[in-house]
Amino acid sequence: MKAEQDLERLTGYFPGRKALSQSAPDFALHHSLEAIKQKDPNVRAWVILKSGQELESDISEAASKPLGALPFGVKDVIDVGGLPTQCGVAGTGKPLARYDAACVEQLRAAGGIPVGKTVTTEYAFRNPGPTRNPWNPAHTPGGSSSGSAAAVAAGMVPAALSTQTGGSIIRPAAYCGVVGFKPSFGLLSRDGLKLTSESLDVIGWHAASVDYAQAFAHALLPRMPNMVSGDFRSLKVAITLHGAAQSPDAEAVAALRHVQQTLERGGAQCADIFMGKELDLLAQAHAAIMKYEFARNLAPVVRHDRHILSPALLNNVAEGFAVPDSLYFEMRAVQRELRGSWHELSDGADLILTPSASGPAPLGHAHTGAPAFNKMWSVLGWPCLHLPVAVAAGGLPIGVQLIANWHHDFRLLDLAATIEEKLNPKGERSD
Amino acid sequence: MKAEQDLERLTGYFPGRKALSQSAPDFALHHSLEAIKQKDPNVRAWVILKSGQELESDISEAASKPLGALPFGVKDVIDVGGLPTQCGVAGTGKPLARYDAACVEQLRAAGGIPVGKTVTTEYAFRNPGPTRNPWNPAHTPGGSSSGSAAAVAAGMVPAALSTQTGGSIIRPAAYCGVVGFKPSFGLLSRDGLKLTSESLDVIGWHAASVDYAQAFAHALLPRMPNMVSGDFRSLKVAITLHGAAQSPDAEAVAALRHVQQTLERGGAQCADIFMGKELDLLAQAHAAIMKYEFARNLAPVVRHDRHILSPALLNNVAEGFAVPDSLYFEMRAVQRELRGSWHELSDGADLILTPSASGPAPLGHAHTGAPAFNKMWSVLGWPCLHLPVAVAAGGLPIGVQLIANWHHDFRLLDLAATIEEKLNPKGERSD
Repeated sequence: MKAEQDLERLTGYFPGRKALSQSAPDFALHHSLEAIKQKDPNVRAWVILKSGQELESDISEAASKPLGALPFGVKDVIDVGGLPTQCGVAGTGKPLARYDAACVEQLRAAGGIPVGKTVTTEYAFRNPGPTRNPWNPAHTPGGSSSGSAAAVAAGMVPAALSTQTGGSIIRPAAYCGVVGFKPSFGLLSRDGLKLTSESLDVIGWHAASVDYAQAFAHALLPRMPNMVSGDFRSLKVAITLHGAAQSPDAEAVAALRHVQQTLERGGAQCADIFMGKELDLLAQAHAAIMKYEFARNLAPVVRHDRHILSPALLNNVAEGFAVPDSLYFEMRAVQRELRGSWHELSDGADLILTPSASGPAPLGHAHTGAPAFNKMWSVLGWPCLHLPVAVAAGGLPIGVQLIANWHHDFRLLDLAATIEEKLNPKGERSD
Repeated sequence: MKAEQDLERLTGYFPGRKALSQSAPDFALHHSLEAIKQKDPNVRAWVILKSGQELESDISEAASKPLGALPFGVKDVIDVGGLPTQCGVAGTGKPLARYDAACVEQLRAAGGIPVGKTVTTEYAFRNPGPTRNPWNPAHTPGGSSSGSAAAVAAGMVPAALSTQTGGSIIRPAAYCGVVGFKPSFGLLSRDGLKLTSESLDVIGWHAASVDYAQAFAHALLPRMPNMVSGDFRSLKVAITLHGAAQSPDAEAVAALRHVQQTLERGGAQCADIFMGKELDLLAQAHAAIMKYEFARNLAPVVRHDRHILSPALLNNVAEGFAVPDSLYFEMRAVQRELRGSWHELSDGADLILTPSASGPAPLGHAHTGAPAFNKMWSVLGWPCLHLPVAVAAGGLPIGVQLIANWHHDFRLLDLAATIEEKLNPKGERSD
């Protein structure tokens, strides 16, 4: 694990929120467009951009609002009015969306400016898009929200909308070294999202730092009263290293222990717990539920456009139709029961600390990595956050996953902000 | 309450499934198109129809499948490939949907043929469309799924896809004298549906008889094993007459008591229970949750098309943005807790029997009636079915609402089939 100066690199690409609020209304947008122009030929995070003229016209309305004309990206499974929603499959003559998705409109109403659509794997499943990891182009950025994570990591936008069904927000956040936030299931409308899984799909976001993630949360989520505290004193943290058929490598464990020490220094009580049995059951539940639902949601696309879909996707659809109804119901019952079992599963903790992935981004572009540390939590629908911690020996970022009980989204964000601040004591993000 | 010959009129418009299966593959479709031609100028249930040529080309593929080229309608908030999804607001240049919604594709794969889009109120909210009640054009057909219920009632199609957020399937089913079925929340994908409420919207269907509703369920829903029995012996039925700020009229109560006697004659144990306190709380929860979520889902439409939306809709959006986050969370917690409380709420029953509406369809077209007997059950997400029972004194149909525990959809349908058969002993529907 390298020293603290790497942390600046982890979070220093886009100007901090405080610095931004003191600059001209169009500063962030111009910074963003310039960064895209310079870096995207190599990173390839974007599918399509709004025209400069359209964007300029958005600034005057947005500048006085809470997000202050903040540019953001939108994963190309979510509608932005006037652009096609291509879902990672180009050239199919898809119509232009008439309206923004509800989440895009919520950000726009808060003063955000959607600058364009970011690369997704094919229908948010496995087949990778062209995006490269900004830390090292020989490595995958992770997926399925590859473009959103990479665009933020490369400093092209301070935040971008993404989606997770298995590990599609947390994993690319980990591989690209940015904050990834998946809210509680069912709190944010999926209007305007191409559904792949009725009971798993969640819209979330990638962000250059926790304060950008918090700013998005304020625009997008209801805020539960009396639920917000970033204080570590009397905080109880449960730690599990368990992944589904994967173990974390030494660097992932070191990053986690580093965060543990930070929490303990602040007064938190941390304890390793064993929840492997339940997590393995949840991983099974994920496989059955995801396949079953994916098949039904993709069937209309398969009927119309079979010739332009990958064999892997077609195979997953076929497998989904073969999942027995009885297994599907059994696993939905597991989901329902365990979703309400935070206190039993976490042994009464306030926060769960666990790896985001088995280690840094793998080499190569044929796969985007495995959701071995994410899919169980996707089944539970609890809010999850990836926090970058350090740069590992190979020059790629590594971090941890933080998880809170259902609907405790703002508490999770506040705790993450405190941890981020303590990990990064020079305070670059506060400017 | 009139005599049994009226029951024939209640369900006799479209040929029964058995008769249909013995006729030529194109019989049902031609019957349907002829009925639309004859009756729709008065009923006005349809927004747009597929061309005859497109429909003919669907027959050969569909004829050998379980639904045997059965024509069906689709509420115009759900995508059908090649048609616009207008959501009850015409003339806005909306693009043609590229793909069928997942539910439409599921029916197509089972041998159904979508013939066109049916009238909805404005964005499935209050502002009525042009549809008239086929039993008496001076009366409302109910809403928001006005066209689907009326098209089935007039014998134009044997079944049609609809949606419910408050009472938009059960109420028009009651007013139009057809079967209405709202499945368990979250079992059927909402892919291709314009969302109005993330935690309430459910896709369901109207049908000419329970066997058509069952045929749709087989095509659309997973089937829980060991859960299917239409047997009344040892069946425990809970009866509640409670409506939210409405009481059932004498005819609604008489229809309910008639069904109660039918159940008791078959060996069921029926008992009146009081659940008014919980139902009133659920009605409050519905108001807060629906408004809160509706505002966020409609905001993109309001931004783009404010000038063509009704004052009532714009007002509901404004009210939704004024619902405090704390109230929203409180009511989501009520929803979550009571959704899992079937046994406590029903006093250990297998089935709840309750009015579908306060009485027959009201006179006039300015309103589509109130969801006073429906919205509580929409919050719970339990499967609900409207069963036509008789023709009331004013010549309009009346029936009952049957409700089962979450995921007991097929059991509910089987029980409804047995009740329907016993109410209609001549067996017209079996042909």
